[in-house]
Amino acid sequence: MMSLHEAIRGRRSIRRFTDQEVTGEQLALMFDAARWAPSWGNSQCWEIIVVRDRETRKKLQETLTPRNPAGPAMDTAPLVLVLAAGMGKSGCYKGERVTKFSEWFLYDLGLATQNICLTAHALGLGSVIVGAFAHDRVKEIVGLPAGYEAVTMIPVGHADHRPAAPKRREVAEFVHDDRFLG
Amino acid sequence: MMSLHEAIRGRRSIRRFTDQEVTGEQLALMFDAARWAPSWGNSQCWEIIVVRDRETRKKLQETLTPRNPAGPAMDTAPLVLVLAAGMGKSGCYKGERVTKFSEWFLYDLGLATQNICLTAHALGLGSVIVGAFAHDRVKEIVGLPAGYEAVTMIPVGHADHRPAAPKRREVAEFVHDDRFLG
Repeated sequence: MMSLHEAIRGRRSIRRFTDQEVTGEQLALMFDAARWAPSWGNSQCWEIIVVRDRETRKKLQETLTPRNPAGPAMDTAPLVLVLAAGMGKSGCYKGERVTKFSEWFLYDLGLATQNICLTAHALGLGSVIVGAFAHDRVKEIVGLPAGYEAVTMIPVGHADHRPAAPKRREVAEFVHDDRFLG
Repeated sequence: MMSLHEAIRGRRSIRRFTDQEVTGEQLALMFDAARWAPSWGNSQCWEIIVVRDRETRKKLQETLTPRNPAGPAMDTAPLVLVLAAGMGKSGCYKGERVTKFSEWFLYDLGLATQNICLTAHALGLGSVIVGAFAHDRVKEIVGLPAGYEAVTMIPVGHADHRPAAPKRREVAEFVHDDRFLG
């Protein structure tokens, strides 16, 4: 299978897909990868809704912010993963929040997301992480009960383009020795 | 190099380290991996402070919550990475927040963190993600200016133990078809 190094450097955000299906086996590998992500106190607050139904996907697409570049991905991918989180676990100790930040579940879902997107890439699939949408509307569409939040949507499929990598900050711009130097 | 599959499944949270140093080359590979993480609108809000100074690390260790199981990791690892985020970029459009959540930088740092920890593992190193500590005190210790937040600390080094994997939820417990079924 693809090396970690190659997966990390070769993954791109894919926003247009072919008609080709994603197999159950491919999905199983992506979900198993998510499963092995670390999380706050091993709390594993992630939930994944696999949306294949075309009508539901249309509704999900309509929740995107205007001019969201991921619009065509929602439309052309054979499926969309909705990543959701159970509240009151990540960042908490016995149900009480113990960090400065109130949305620690975002960090844990980021960890699991990277496992999913790297695995998709290693399987020859493309994906893109969509974050700008009406979160409460998506919650309603996929039937999330109270105590859960929809966080991101990830269309997955076979890329029909090979985008160049957007420019990255150089390592020297974000790494500091012992103290932050702005 | 190690396969992605093996890296994802073999990584463990390591909380005790040997004296052996982490080389500059190993760090460079970890930081380059962080660099290739996706982020909100490619905003790349991450900053990494590499703390090797023993006195500073002692101060960082003292910020941990009581009985934090990562205490010995802060002490025995040859270095601690402090992951920080610049505010007003992730989750924002032209400086204005556009999502339901106010701490989207946590998600982006989660994505970058997983690249770092997987790469550490592939290089034969261990790491653990520490999140329960006095964030504002760490901010002060590493000299973060206004507009930045300390998010996590990641001790990195050579493992002196091989912990078993903590139990994970089964895929069937967190994956749902088309609609959430609680």
